[in-house]
Amino acid sequence: MDRNLYFEVGEYKERLNKTKQSMSDNGIDLIIVTDPANMNYLTGFDGWSFYVHQCLIVIADQDEPIWVGRGQDGNAARLTTWLQEENIRAYTDDYVQSLIKHPMDFVSDIIKEKRCDKRVIATEMDSYYYTAKCQERLVVGLPNATFKDGTNLVNWVRIIKSDFEVEYIRKAARIAENAMAAAYNSINVGVRQCDAAANVYHAQISGTKTYGGDYSSIIPLMPSGIRTSTPHLSWTDGPYVDGESVILELSGCYRRYHCPLSRTMILGDAPQKVRDLAEVVVEGLTNALNAIKPGMTCEEVERVWAKSIAKSGFIKDSRIGYSMGLNYPPDWGEHTASFRPGDKTILKPNMTFHMIPGIWLSDCGVDISESFRVTENGCETFTNYPRKLLVK
Amino acid sequence: MDRNLYFEVGEYKERLNKTKQSMSDNGIDLIIVTDPANMNYLTGFDGWSFYVHQCLIVIADQDEPIWVGRGQDGNAARLTTWLQEENIRAYTDDYVQSLIKHPMDFVSDIIKEKRCDKRVIATEMDSYYYTAKCQERLVVGLPNATFKDGTNLVNWVRIIKSDFEVEYIRKAARIAENAMAAAYNSINVGVRQCDAAANVYHAQISGTKTYGGDYSSIIPLMPSGIRTSTPHLSWTDGPYVDGESVILELSGCYRRYHCPLSRTMILGDAPQKVRDLAEVVVEGLTNALNAIKPGMTCEEVERVWAKSIAKSGFIKDSRIGYSMGLNYPPDWGEHTASFRPGDKTILKPNMTFHMIPGIWLSDCGVDISESFRVTENGCETFTNYPRKLLVK
Repeated sequence: MDRNLYFEVGEYKERLNKTKQSMSDNGIDLIIVTDPANMNYLTGFDGWSFYVHQCLIVIADQDEPIWVGRGQDGNAARLTTWLQEENIRAYTDDYVQSLIKHPMDFVSDIIKEKRCDKRVIATEMDSYYYTAKCQERLVVGLPNATFKDGTNLVNWVRIIKSDFEVEYIRKAARIAENAMAAAYNSINVGVRQCDAAANVYHAQISGTKTYGGDYSSIIPLMPSGIRTSTPHLSWTDGPYVDGESVILELSGCYRRYHCPLSRTMILGDAPQKVRDLAEVVVEGLTNALNAIKPGMTCEEVERVWAKSIAKSGFIKDSRIGYSMGLNYPPDWGEHTASFRPGDKTILKPNMTFHMIPGIWLSDCGVDISESFRVTENGCETFTNYPRKLLVK
Repeated sequence: MDRNLYFEVGEYKERLNKTKQSMSDNGIDLIIVTDPANMNYLTGFDGWSFYVHQCLIVIADQDEPIWVGRGQDGNAARLTTWLQEENIRAYTDDYVQSLIKHPMDFVSDIIKEKRCDKRVIATEMDSYYYTAKCQERLVVGLPNATFKDGTNLVNWVRIIKSDFEVEYIRKAARIAENAMAAAYNSINVGVRQCDAAANVYHAQISGTKTYGGDYSSIIPLMPSGIRTSTPHLSWTDGPYVDGESVILELSGCYRRYHCPLSRTMILGDAPQKVRDLAEVVVEGLTNALNAIKPGMTCEEVERVWAKSIAKSGFIKDSRIGYSMGLNYPPDWGEHTASFRPGDKTILKPNMTFHMIPGIWLSDCGVDISESFRVTENGCETFTNYPRKLLVK
């Protein structure tokens, strides 16, 4: 079959080697990788099949991971990964959402076949698609194995991007700018929120003239009015109303790499509170970005923000950003470094973050964000969109 | 705060009562509900916050479930559920993606506060967002509880829809027809696949003139050419090519209720194999739909299909449909009844299904589907779109 890989095979192998190094450092012989982003990262696998159980079995002393998934998705593995046929192992359909057979039984059988059932096996204990049942069945199926928690092991390998990955995020940035412009241009008093959202989606997927967009791991978050008091609501089919604010948290996505971007928009006369809040957020965000350099810790970045907003009286009690890049629904964050007190992750070149210091009060909120890459001596923000409260 | 409920409070309470009845039948005192569709079903909660841990605690002898989620999502619960303030319990941000604190520790604390920590507690062991770590922390946090598997307990309550829910699916059906028409009208030789996908998204979200659309739980699945040999790939940014086929599996969504619809389309001269396959699928699908009536079992429905296609020589080794309705990414299926051998679920009025007997060969595939409701004496298909191979 004609394969459609997004990176050179050598890059995938390098990622695999780094993963094996981390396995070795942590005393792990075999890791079962279920996070779709980690599966993509190591093999290229890209399909909307994570609604059934699937995984990679990465064995320290084997050249290739083994892909395990549903029969009908086997061709997706053949088309999108660099794996050889012998490492694409599909289960029959009677394992799907069954009370009798569980896909992890199939995984146990392969691990026994590979004579790894007495070794140290790690699982991604807190990854979305690795359910409690998966672990239960695996522990029953492999009574002689020693289990370890491998949550985020591959995610931590992902935190420093290759130049090729950065290039994909830059492409996603152009799409993010287009999506934000589509939102700004579409939203107006009397316009149905769903119609504005439809235009945002159109911009996200059609992409640019030279390349198309991929689906974002989070829907366009576009709450307005009272709904801006919380960050994860989105459009309704009601019309926008004069004087209300709209929070826009959107992302461009190219080949599963994201560039999130957030702005807050006001229709007509904004309440003074929203204007004040926006000023505080922009100043704090800008100060924090200006401070970024390799060698700093994530908590130090948060301190710059916290100091900047302290004089305003507004309080921000949640993290102000996180590592991001390659991902699948429901999140574009990588679940590794966060800008918050206690996070001692040291910034290094080609780490990529979304800094989103949103503040939500009881009746309104403001989000203004930037995605950026840590460079050799500072940071490169990916998008070029006015960093201010948008007024219309 | 102004609440925005999609159903009368009475309907939510009836759903809760049915859930409690099932808990009682299964000897369960308390169930922790993490499936976002089940959370919505019981309380109305609707936000893109399932990327962090959240749940409902449903206690058999308490009037209301308790919503547990992240601090900043508390207002989403206040705006979208019927719950009283005392039953909206938000955790601080240091629980988010932390190695030290886990949201399930917070849940354990509430269960102790309610003096339920020695009772029989069920968890949704195989639900997407209920990770292995959730169960581990809960078992450690509640050493005196007896744990049971409550996977799909609420899903089974969901299987029979109210007339109000059916009305929402009918609205979603109009959107599905519009999305399919947008796909058909957009796809042509030389058109970029991403531009056609953008138009499909636009139709899904803008909805109809009288109501808007919601995001679908599965992206528009639109593989073409060799990629139709597997069902869960989608568009690229390459152009459509003369003579290739395109599989379209799309859904309309209204207030989280889905109406999936699938068709296969040919650009120019179709290979005879695809035409033959389409004819077999349409005949088998039609025969199975004509046979539907209350009292039949799901496996009997599958037998009608299997008998119909037997003479063709094509083989279908996966289920031909499943219960569907209210849902969140990554799936619109309800994980209860499936049309497949061994499924003895008895059809009852107002069960709603997606019958999708796709067949995928090594180099191509055909999907043609219908969503339907079981009626008092047969079935009502929701969409009205030509049930045939689409040629352009």
